[in-house]
Amino acid sequence: MPTIRLPGAGPVDNSTSPHARLRTLPFGAVRLSEGFWSRRQDIVREVSLPTGFHMLDVAGNLHDLRLAAGLVKGEYQGPVFMDSDVYKWLEAAAYTLARRPDPELEKMADSLIELIGQAQGSDGYVNSYWQVVEPERRWADLSFGHELYCAGHLIQAAVAYDRGTGNPRLLEIAQRFADNIDSVFGPGKRDGTPGHPEIEMALVELYRDTGERRYLNLAQFFVDRRGHGLLDPGRQRHSAYFQDHVPVREASTVEGHAVRQLYLTSGLTDLYLETGDATLWQALSRQWDDMVRRKMYVTGGVGSRHMGEAFGEAYELPNDRAYCETCAAIASVMWNWRMLLATGESRYADVLERALYNAILSGISLDGQRYFYVNPLLSHGVDSLIGRKFAERFAWHSCACCPPNVMRLFASLDHYVATRDGQGLQIHLYTPANLDVTLESGQLARIELTTDYPWRGEVRLTIQESPTNPWSLSLRIPDWSANATIRINGQPQSNVETRKGYAILKRSWRSGDIVELDLAMTARLTEAHPWVDPARASVAIERGPLVYCLEQPDQEATTHVLNVEIDPSSPLTDCWRPDLLGGIMTIQANGSTVDTVAWSSRLYAPFGTTARLPRRSTRLTAIPYYAWANRGRAAMRVWIPRAR
Amino acid sequence: MPTIRLPGAGPVDNSTSPHARLRTLPFGAVRLSEGFWSRRQDIVREVSLPTGFHMLDVAGNLHDLRLAAGLVKGEYQGPVFMDSDVYKWLEAAAYTLARRPDPELEKMADSLIELIGQAQGSDGYVNSYWQVVEPERRWADLSFGHELYCAGHLIQAAVAYDRGTGNPRLLEIAQRFADNIDSVFGPGKRDGTPGHPEIEMALVELYRDTGERRYLNLAQFFVDRRGHGLLDPGRQRHSAYFQDHVPVREASTVEGHAVRQLYLTSGLTDLYLETGDATLWQALSRQWDDMVRRKMYVTGGVGSRHMGEAFGEAYELPNDRAYCETCAAIASVMWNWRMLLATGESRYADVLERALYNAILSGISLDGQRYFYVNPLLSHGVDSLIGRKFAERFAWHSCACCPPNVMRLFASLDHYVATRDGQGLQIHLYTPANLDVTLESGQLARIELTTDYPWRGEVRLTIQESPTNPWSLSLRIPDWSANATIRINGQPQSNVETRKGYAILKRSWRSGDIVELDLAMTARLTEAHPWVDPARASVAIERGPLVYCLEQPDQEATTHVLNVEIDPSSPLTDCWRPDLLGGIMTIQANGSTVDTVAWSSRLYAPFGTTARLPRRSTRLTAIPYYAWANRGRAAMRVWIPRAR
Repeated sequence: MPTIRLPGAGPVDNSTSPHARLRTLPFGAVRLSEGFWSRRQDIVREVSLPTGFHMLDVAGNLHDLRLAAGLVKGEYQGPVFMDSDVYKWLEAAAYTLARRPDPELEKMADSLIELIGQAQGSDGYVNSYWQVVEPERRWADLSFGHELYCAGHLIQAAVAYDRGTGNPRLLEIAQRFADNIDSVFGPGKRDGTPGHPEIEMALVELYRDTGERRYLNLAQFFVDRRGHGLLDPGRQRHSAYFQDHVPVREASTVEGHAVRQLYLTSGLTDLYLETGDATLWQALSRQWDDMVRRKMYVTGGVGSRHMGEAFGEAYELPNDRAYCETCAAIASVMWNWRMLLATGESRYADVLERALYNAILSGISLDGQRYFYVNPLLSHGVDSLIGRKFAERFAWHSCACCPPNVMRLFASLDHYVATRDGQGLQIHLYTPANLDVTLESGQLARIELTTDYPWRGEVRLTIQESPTNPWSLSLRIPDWSANATIRINGQPQSNVETRKGYAILKRSWRSGDIVELDLAMTARLTEAHPWVDPARASVAIERGPLVYCLEQPDQEATTHVLNVEIDPSSPLTDCWRPDLLGGIMTIQANGSTVDTVAWSSRLYAPFGTTARLPRRSTRLTAIPYYAWANRGRAAMRVWIPRAR
Repeated sequence: MPTIRLPGAGPVDNSTSPHARLRTLPFGAVRLSEGFWSRRQDIVREVSLPTGFHMLDVAGNLHDLRLAAGLVKGEYQGPVFMDSDVYKWLEAAAYTLARRPDPELEKMADSLIELIGQAQGSDGYVNSYWQVVEPERRWADLSFGHELYCAGHLIQAAVAYDRGTGNPRLLEIAQRFADNIDSVFGPGKRDGTPGHPEIEMALVELYRDTGERRYLNLAQFFVDRRGHGLLDPGRQRHSAYFQDHVPVREASTVEGHAVRQLYLTSGLTDLYLETGDATLWQALSRQWDDMVRRKMYVTGGVGSRHMGEAFGEAYELPNDRAYCETCAAIASVMWNWRMLLATGESRYADVLERALYNAILSGISLDGQRYFYVNPLLSHGVDSLIGRKFAERFAWHSCACCPPNVMRLFASLDHYVATRDGQGLQIHLYTPANLDVTLESGQLARIELTTDYPWRGEVRLTIQESPTNPWSLSLRIPDWSANATIRINGQPQSNVETRKGYAILKRSWRSGDIVELDLAMTARLTEAHPWVDPARASVAIERGPLVYCLEQPDQEATTHVLNVEIDPSSPLTDCWRPDLLGGIMTIQANGSTVDTVAWSSRLYAPFGTTARLPRRSTRLTAIPYYAWANRGRAAMRVWIPRAR
């Protein structure tokens, strides 16, 4: 079946990628309807984007661009990568405007685009720091300079804005810059590779968007030059931070700065989708295994180390000092999405979903105004010299990478719901939506998806329009679903073919057909690999895609979250609480609270001390991890010690 | 009873300190005889000191001083604090020479002293980095410059050298530098405080040694100027690193860079011993409680964070990423020694002993040639990108603070065995020794101490000479000893007075009297505070002052250290192994090994997974923690999970 070029999709349009198994859908093919994620998109539009626009002004990002444009005089403010926050904000605005008109938002966006245009030099170069502060040292510090990183975000925003709004102005700016970069770097030109990966996936997308192969070649050049010591000559200790410690095709582990690592693997997977480079694929597969089998939190968070914002050693997954940068989990979504597109295997969607509902969603407050940079799995909830910023969300941050990153991901979430291939349509994420998809055959299928996911495991798909010839509707069976059942028009389906983690329903669909998927969502207890020290003899409560936690405000008055033990044999009880934290399903369990006063004067004692302490039965109430830290500073834990 | 001024003692001579409860003994009063620690002192003399002298040459420390002396031309090598390694080496040499003549060692030492003298400027200033590299910026960077830090080590070495050998040459150099510093800093002169504490305790000791009160005043000045933002104006995040986050009398927790914190508290305690400043004492007591109750490993190691080499939050004590710098544990010994001198309370000696036998002794290989900078409590034993240096000892290090620090501590260990007060003599550490002590009454007591400590809990003290009037022999009952008994001349003593953790034996001692202390040393299991995540549901094996570990080479062929569980109800069996690791008591326990192959492809699984895995009984063999990593890279763990 021939590949049909459809209008641009969201962040990734792989409709022409030769090595894709699944293809993304164009804007408008999936519209989220009232539900869990559409509410988050509304908050992004109504709160986060306007607030963020204001913060870009307050924090100096716009000031810096105005300096570069020669509109004002003054000192450059903030770190070298200030422009990238503006670009990520614009990308989020693009997806938001693609869904529905919003003159006010469009006005803000257009003002930024105009400003960027004014800042851009006549040669196409634009980066406020290097234009304002060190104009003579342009491209002189690829390791820390972030010029190519900012350029990558500009390109991603520009492609999104063009695709989402039809306004090509930002794309023209970005392409001029890309052409400038292409004139500087490449074989026979300047050697180099960026200290912070990002431009790789942007250039591949620009190639997909424009058909200009030189952008793909430039991405390939940057990738091939990595791992040869260009970024950190003689200082081996930093080479993993820059992702320069090994040529990409020889990598077998995820290492160093987590966002850099996963932006890189995302770009590499994009490259694979275009080139089919088998050696590259093998490296990516090895690295994915390393991440998922040895270096990922149960929340989907990655990058366990504060030091270097880095992946740790295998099984190095502290709860209290978990770094789990929100941006790293977002990068994991980007990478897993591309791996899914390359393979059609649900395990990538499983990891994507885990990060999305937990490690990322915890990164933004329920009201959309405050953010976590770091997402620990344990908080003592106390004020301390340096612990404070990890127990309370902040309104913005001196390195404000996470806020606009959350915005652009949530604003583009319709992109991740479904794909198509030669056989039909695949549903990856379950959230209320209307699908209006041109199949690869060129024929239209319209489906209404209704569900209370992530609170209930029932998903209902109503076929509203379909070609008469048979095609496959593939439904992802999440890894947590132990007992999924499917009914079509009320009839239980007993012999459903399952492939790569998807139930494949192939038939001649008719308007009015109803598919009912029941994922049998019940609360469950999870344990960790026995080599994960800080989760030993503990369980995490999960339900559907959500990881739960115990937060202090939900416990009985005399029960301290740090002193509890759970009885793992007691039933877990769901309780829907529409009034609590925006409406959540809480989970209750039986446990006990240990009187640890005897421990207050010491850290170590003879074996048996804790076992002999008085215990009192208590009812434990768990809330979704993503909802913690919305009621002030309080103790919280994901891993709950088991009663003896 | 009047205080008698005796000839200078080792590192601390508090014989004139008004607020000391216990007073240190002069050189020669305690001579270690053949045993555990004298063997280490021999290794320091025979191996570590000569090797270290060679390394000081190879690493450039001597070259830098030669540059400063104008003897050679070339580039400065290494970090700014290179001189301090030379001074610490000299301090170790001083204690070693105090014990017995060693012409070769003395020649090395004298050559260094001559070199330092040549490097010293006419104004008394000496610091090779600032003399050679940035002479015009002397004292310009108190935060990172380490000039006062190096000066402190020079002073400590000089006082030791003068006391230990009677050769005043280094003391003259040091005092000229101290006078130079005193001419620069102080009220009405230059304001400031050092970024790395160290000079405080050195200046107090110089005051004690010379009687010159201005050195005490200068120490007081540096202390009082700390915590007022002089070191890190406007950058609050680093102020704890420099110990500048709070005025010292307001501190209630140990924070920031661990060595800086504990060198500071050591100096503050010295200051308290001289001034009796009650507010300062209250702060030190609060900080000690915080360290011992919330931030210390079972090994006595402190400073859990790699990032900033810092104390973590309360209960933040990871096993794999434990930093536990050898120098920080040494600093803990220094501080606890001074707290003991101030109070006479055994709990300080308990912490001192714990650090000494475990977190410090692990920092040097059995052959005295290789060192650990970082002392983790868990090693997977595998080579990894950055994990290697934590699983294998190194011969020297680019920041070689630890090796000469271990040398000077071990070389001065006789200093820490006993003290005297108006009532008599106190024994703090048990190791074979001859004590030849002038009591505060001015009368002589001679005692022979024999023991196989730390392998056996029996300690025998033979009174060889004693005044006839009654005096108290106080014997420390370690916190681990649950059932100590004492016999005098074969007669069990049932009503021994115990005060501040010491058994006080007051009587008219006669030559030939024999005291037999039996500390009832048996292997025991220890557990940690339930808030210490990585030790949950685990036990540590301890025996006497030693913490044990499981290292891979001692286990059965198919038993992987990372897969074991211990049966805490099974008896622990001692087994003396003269052939193993220089002669050690091993401890055996029953346990099982879990077949974790089923976990290899995942990190998380339903609760019950590990419980259902096949197990095989195994005999676990534990060795003292200090002895690990002497047989190549291998998995090791201190905390052993308990069988269900």
